[in-house]
Amino acid sequence: MTSFLTDLICARCGAHHDADVLQGVCGDCESPLLARYDIEAARQAVTPAALPARPFTLWRYEELLPLRDRRFRATLGEGGTPLLSLPRLGEQLRLPGLSAKLEGVNPTGCFKDRGMAVAVSRAKELGATELVVPTAGNAGGALSAYAARAGLTARVFMPADAPVSNIAEARATGGEVRLVDGLIDEAGRQARQVAEAGYAFNMATLREPYRIEGKKTMGYELAEQHDWQLPDVVVYPTGGGTGLIGMWKAFDEMEALGWIEPNRRPRMVSVQASGCAPLVAAFRAGHEDSIPWTDARTDAAGLRVPHALGDFMILKAVYDSRGIAVAVSDREMRDAQVQLGHGEGIYAGLEGAATVAAVSKLRDSGWLAGSETVVLFLTSSGLKV
Amino acid sequence: MTSFLTDLICARCGAHHDADVLQGVCGDCESPLLARYDIEAARQAVTPAALPARPFTLWRYEELLPLRDRRFRATLGEGGTPLLSLPRLGEQLRLPGLSAKLEGVNPTGCFKDRGMAVAVSRAKELGATELVVPTAGNAGGALSAYAARAGLTARVFMPADAPVSNIAEARATGGEVRLVDGLIDEAGRQARQVAEAGYAFNMATLREPYRIEGKKTMGYELAEQHDWQLPDVVVYPTGGGTGLIGMWKAFDEMEALGWIEPNRRPRMVSVQASGCAPLVAAFRAGHEDSIPWTDARTDAAGLRVPHALGDFMILKAVYDSRGIAVAVSDREMRDAQVQLGHGEGIYAGLEGAATVAAVSKLRDSGWLAGSETVVLFLTSSGLKV
Repeated sequence: MTSFLTDLICARCGAHHDADVLQGVCGDCESPLLARYDIEAARQAVTPAALPARPFTLWRYEELLPLRDRRFRATLGEGGTPLLSLPRLGEQLRLPGLSAKLEGVNPTGCFKDRGMAVAVSRAKELGATELVVPTAGNAGGALSAYAARAGLTARVFMPADAPVSNIAEARATGGEVRLVDGLIDEAGRQARQVAEAGYAFNMATLREPYRIEGKKTMGYELAEQHDWQLPDVVVYPTGGGTGLIGMWKAFDEMEALGWIEPNRRPRMVSVQASGCAPLVAAFRAGHEDSIPWTDARTDAAGLRVPHALGDFMILKAVYDSRGIAVAVSDREMRDAQVQLGHGEGIYAGLEGAATVAAVSKLRDSGWLAGSETVVLFLTSSGLKV
Repeated sequence: MTSFLTDLICARCGAHHDADVLQGVCGDCESPLLARYDIEAARQAVTPAALPARPFTLWRYEELLPLRDRRFRATLGEGGTPLLSLPRLGEQLRLPGLSAKLEGVNPTGCFKDRGMAVAVSRAKELGATELVVPTAGNAGGALSAYAARAGLTARVFMPADAPVSNIAEARATGGEVRLVDGLIDEAGRQARQVAEAGYAFNMATLREPYRIEGKKTMGYELAEQHDWQLPDVVVYPTGGGTGLIGMWKAFDEMEALGWIEPNRRPRMVSVQASGCAPLVAAFRAGHEDSIPWTDARTDAAGLRVPHALGDFMILKAVYDSRGIAVAVSDREMRDAQVQLGHGEGIYAGLEGAATVAAVSKLRDSGWLAGSETVVLFLTSSGLKV
């Protein structure tokens, strides 16, 4: 048995849904659906000790992933990214326990590959042939690549001002790219029209249940690479926020599996751009949901997301973990990108660089103590411009 | 003990040199120096069965790498790249045993990271503080990144028409970039001046002994990922050619170690651009050395190398393996890039795409049989433009 998937549950209303038919959002309340597993059976089937013998891609956690039949696995070798200590930057920031997860070495240079590898594989297993996605940029390249690998077709709705590398890579792997006059929310509206007209299955963030399953593997890898001890703090750049929600879900599952100690979660830090910070605004107001941001402006395309469908889940993870939401300016991101590049030789995208800027502020304010272990998620390569 | 390095030997005249001082080329004949190891002791210290428990980076072969002290290891997680079967492309090309090694998922998006990780680490261990390299592009980004990671300074001499991503990434990681009016040979002349004036240690291809040691790990990984059976044919895009020479050296070492069967080497295919094909010309004439190419023209920057210092070693590996050298046009590379992207979801740089075009020709001519296992080296990501 590869997968111990049992069913889907609505993240808001708790309704159950069949996992073995193609599903979008909850039919009752239109909220995201989350995959559930037979944890007891998975615990019997696999232990952490069995993992090192498997190839270090995200598929090493296959029992906790939704794909039932390996023949449908569309893989380009995603996941298994390095976790590197950052001694020189850590010294500059007075954080000797600083390290980073390098997601830019995924096949399309971005963590989005994790979600698409799993979701495209599962969509194919459930019979989809045409896929559509709205994207700020990176998810479009990832969908096109994995759809091509699976032999499916991909349609990509992307803002006209998306990074040129994203447009080029999506086309290079056969994606049909439509440039949209507007932001990702307008792209999302157009993608939904295509999906509702029956032309394609909608792969938008949290509008199908399995991209988050791929992204949660960042949490599994983080635990495994820390010898099943989680760090004190995780710092994550938050656009749609599925990576952060996914990791939080992975922590739930690993606790239930007995792979990590209970009640020893990292504090989760959500980093946004000053020019588009709906979650930071909600966090400061103590709200459970965010208000869509108007006039979103930032050069970090992945953070140009005025409203995250999973906002309530992101905020819940931040609150429950005693975390924080922080905004940094584009100027601060650019300076941090240089600091990271010159100090450690890592050329990260602006979104990832934002975490360096955030940590600098949090250390100065005392929110971070110098004795803490802190992991930055550098979600994409600096080549993606 | 980490490394079983013993000494250096000149690839042309056979003179021995001390491995524990900084060395460039052979002092007697100015040819490349190659590292040698105490194979018998290494065989006792490590077996293939011990490898899977180690992290899958190139450092898992540390006994056969030159670094003596792990504290000098400058790593960004290089190596351990996926080897993927290409069923759809294989069907199109009537080669069901076709697969590819994806070097574009290295930290700077290119196989050059392997050489620089090892050579920069070793240069630091031997006391170097300033490094210089001439490059068609990718090696400059790699040197800058690893020098920054090691806390050393990097100077990069690059043709003014090098890919903009290479210029950007080298600067982003702190490299001092000088744009040169000319090709890599002119960049090489200027870098040598800087080195000879005592300002920096020269990291040019095969002008120091350890980049090839990093690159040879492609051969170790290839064997390990094929369960210690090498494929029938290896197809490699050849600019400076150190990757091909390095793999051939790895095969020698693995035979001596008893890790692979003797006399079962792949046929080595060297692929060049029609507009710069000195090795193909030499191969056709049956020569042991190449004649520098005049008026080199190709959009594949990594193949814009008019004369490879290791030409005689590349040609020897091709001859000894009953391989071949093939030229493909830029147009054929671009078509192959689309075929690979649309067929398999892999966005490779033009140099890697050249191997697809070459294999197509070799299958048509009958040089490749449909029953053979063939591995393409996709040396860089398509994002590096």
